[in-house]
Amino acid sequence: MAKNLTKRSEDYSKWYNELVLQADLAENSGVRGCMVIKPYGFSIWEKMQAELDRMFKETGHQNAYFPLFIPKSYFSKEASHVDGFAKECAVVTHYRLKDDGEGGVVVDPDAKLEEELIVRPTSETIIWDTYRKWIQSYRDLPLLINQWANVVRWEMRTRLFLRTTEFLWQEGHTAHATKKEAIEETEQMLDIYADFAERYMAIPVVKGLKTESERFAGALETYCIEALMQDGKALQAGTSHFLGQNFAKAFDVKFTAKDGKQDFVWASSWGVSTRLMGALIMTHSDDNGLVLPPNLAPDQVVIVPIYRSDEQFDLVSKVAKEVMSELRAKGVRVKFDNRDTHKPGWKFNEYELKGVPVRLAIGPRDVENGTLELARRDTLTKETVSRDEVSGIVVALMDEIQKNLYKKAQNHRTENTSEVSTYDEFKEVLKTKGGFIYAHWDGTNETEEKVKNETKATIRCIPLDAKDEDGECMVTGKPSKRKVLFAKAY
Amino acid sequence: MAKNLTKRSEDYSKWYNELVLQADLAENSGVRGCMVIKPYGFSIWEKMQAELDRMFKETGHQNAYFPLFIPKSYFSKEASHVDGFAKECAVVTHYRLKDDGEGGVVVDPDAKLEEELIVRPTSETIIWDTYRKWIQSYRDLPLLINQWANVVRWEMRTRLFLRTTEFLWQEGHTAHATKKEAIEETEQMLDIYADFAERYMAIPVVKGLKTESERFAGALETYCIEALMQDGKALQAGTSHFLGQNFAKAFDVKFTAKDGKQDFVWASSWGVSTRLMGALIMTHSDDNGLVLPPNLAPDQVVIVPIYRSDEQFDLVSKVAKEVMSELRAKGVRVKFDNRDTHKPGWKFNEYELKGVPVRLAIGPRDVENGTLELARRDTLTKETVSRDEVSGIVVALMDEIQKNLYKKAQNHRTENTSEVSTYDEFKEVLKTKGGFIYAHWDGTNETEEKVKNETKATIRCIPLDAKDEDGECMVTGKPSKRKVLFAKAY
Repeated sequence: MAKNLTKRSEDYSKWYNELVLQADLAENSGVRGCMVIKPYGFSIWEKMQAELDRMFKETGHQNAYFPLFIPKSYFSKEASHVDGFAKECAVVTHYRLKDDGEGGVVVDPDAKLEEELIVRPTSETIIWDTYRKWIQSYRDLPLLINQWANVVRWEMRTRLFLRTTEFLWQEGHTAHATKKEAIEETEQMLDIYADFAERYMAIPVVKGLKTESERFAGALETYCIEALMQDGKALQAGTSHFLGQNFAKAFDVKFTAKDGKQDFVWASSWGVSTRLMGALIMTHSDDNGLVLPPNLAPDQVVIVPIYRSDEQFDLVSKVAKEVMSELRAKGVRVKFDNRDTHKPGWKFNEYELKGVPVRLAIGPRDVENGTLELARRDTLTKETVSRDEVSGIVVALMDEIQKNLYKKAQNHRTENTSEVSTYDEFKEVLKTKGGFIYAHWDGTNETEEKVKNETKATIRCIPLDAKDEDGECMVTGKPSKRKVLFAKAY
Repeated sequence: MAKNLTKRSEDYSKWYNELVLQADLAENSGVRGCMVIKPYGFSIWEKMQAELDRMFKETGHQNAYFPLFIPKSYFSKEASHVDGFAKECAVVTHYRLKDDGEGGVVVDPDAKLEEELIVRPTSETIIWDTYRKWIQSYRDLPLLINQWANVVRWEMRTRLFLRTTEFLWQEGHTAHATKKEAIEETEQMLDIYADFAERYMAIPVVKGLKTESERFAGALETYCIEALMQDGKALQAGTSHFLGQNFAKAFDVKFTAKDGKQDFVWASSWGVSTRLMGALIMTHSDDNGLVLPPNLAPDQVVIVPIYRSDEQFDLVSKVAKEVMSELRAKGVRVKFDNRDTHKPGWKFNEYELKGVPVRLAIGPRDVENGTLELARRDTLTKETVSRDEVSGIVVALMDEIQKNLYKKAQNHRTENTSEVSTYDEFKEVLKTKGGFIYAHWDGTNETEEKVKNETKATIRCIPLDAKDEDGECMVTGKPSKRKVLFAKAY
């Protein structure tokens, strides 16, 4: 594998694309806009899935599976939903091909569907059509369901992980007896996403509410977490929607309360996707390649043997395997790369590119001295450590590296967060450093739209922890109660 | 939940359908032929997935993800594959809808795809198109990849789990330097499927080879495992295909060997699907509902409190929780159903219907006596056990029930396996008891087809452990070297 990565400072976007390919995370497929997630990339996604799934189950959610296809008419039942989603979708119109008489196949015109099927861009409609059958009484509530699935949104410009026609995600869909409970659920799931981002991905996030124009199609409120990438652009990393009774009304889902009264149920939906892989890559990685937080690294430690003869190989392998056993016993994920098809230098590059948090190298001299060479991926530093102490050191390092990555990301965000009072100042900051910009806004769609058209920056969210403070909208001078968060975004 | 299950002896097919619905496993959706897998059904599938995934990884396989869509032209590249698969498929022809001006949406004729996309019925073509980029040298081999995914095959007559338009499955796709290695892989995966069926699902299976007419479209050999259901029909529970160099040639996947020579790579593919749920249900369940083997039961034990007052509830809950902790500490999956919305009798029915292997009930009298009531789902027997011994007893029961279910299934199979010499005998057995029937066959498509047309029985497989013995085809009298396995099948 040739290591030949463009520098971030030269061309951030090119750096990202090359990194995704060279670290064996994903690649484009022969199908427009659809990616292949390669085994290494997928193993990171599996780690994310496992942790999120555990967090969902600990909070009482169950997994289920709903159909890939949604009848076209379902979309028309919730007016704003159809505008937001049904239009840029893959449409199945036929169910059979036939021979074209020349060795190929053509669509069989006799196999046309009476009603076209949409490949799900999100599953509210098919799920709420099902919930009508599942919910009759308050005893059936709350209904707390999650689905891990693939979805399709026909994107014109795609980028690996960040925006692809097909992507993998989870979508939670819950039903509740009261508005209060539904909002609590919406907020709980936002907290879980934020917690996951911070503790596993080592990414600090801002929790907030979307403005009306950025809300999920069919939601009364959209909560989100926003992260800042190294190039000063924001990335929306997860959303949680309070759907009110919109879908219950569209699909006629009512329940009988304890007191015998009937009412429509209250709903939330929430999701994160393989886009998180993009956030993970762009937050921590450097000009040498991927940098992975230990909590999500498929291999937390790799051991590379250094040898010139079979005898030396046996000698170092023995120690390497002992160290591997010790580390595994302590719960560390270790790989011993004993392949003789590649040289140590090649392996060093490979694991640097792939972001393995700690690399241990051991040669005959190390065996003699009772040492190993330990290299940290996050700081790119090396040190010689004692054979007897190595497993304790590595275990402690897992925690330290995890924290260091978070801190680095947090420092970067602090350095790249500005507060401005005037629109000129806003434009100046956007031009010179980008990043998160807090500013007063008058709360209107018009102003939001104007800023977007003139600067390409959007309101990422109205932060949940924003202080109440009287101020004036940086654009119109109209009164504002709190600052909101602007940024250019992915 | 009303328990009102048709008896197997009355109408086996109706019993199955009712059981799937009443035990909350799955239901039909608003989309023709597509099912909704309900949370309880999905939790059993998750257990299957987890064990299989572990077994795949232990044998060196990695997961990845390939696109849902396959360009139509890919199918034409492997001649027999297109015949077998591309024809009964969902075809995406458009990528946009638009308003119809009456509140609905219609397909936008301006958004027609240049080349139609097929929703994957299986992924050989898209994967081998990708492998061309991944494989250059012997160093890249073997390539051992698995994918968990949804696939779509346009079925005309569907049944929950057994035959649905969309289903979930895993598909392994491997590439090897030699024919020998590819065949070894194919056989290894068959063994893993058989092992999983026997040790986890408690289903004895016959391992064998498919006849030419039943082979996977594009394979040189298809290996399978066949199980016998309670109604005397066979169910194919998993297949593993030796693909030779067919897909490598169709997609031009060559590698350079150590000696510098170029050759096409050798391939296998293998899969099991949510159909296994059907096999699990039909093998063990009875007229009272689902019966689950402990190794796959989401809840292995349920504890039901019996009480008339809050005071009694507190009293029995205390012991119930202690027992739950003890069992959990021993690795048993226990649920304490302390809901006050349902009566004990309702709960007893519910868990019987859902196949929970062991039910413990505890009332105030039990607390006094230092006992609990233990009910086994497999034998429908009850006994009083000592509070102090209960966790040891339950742990031992997990193993005993697992073995008992396997043994019962094995006995049923033995009783319903026949060997016949003549075609008349064959037809008689088929009419009177069904089941597995071993008979000599002359090895021709014609004879196989004749038997199928006249009796609806098919050759399930040529068993791998079939003894070499000279005989005469039961239909034509032509020479045969070994008996093959016939049955009517799902």
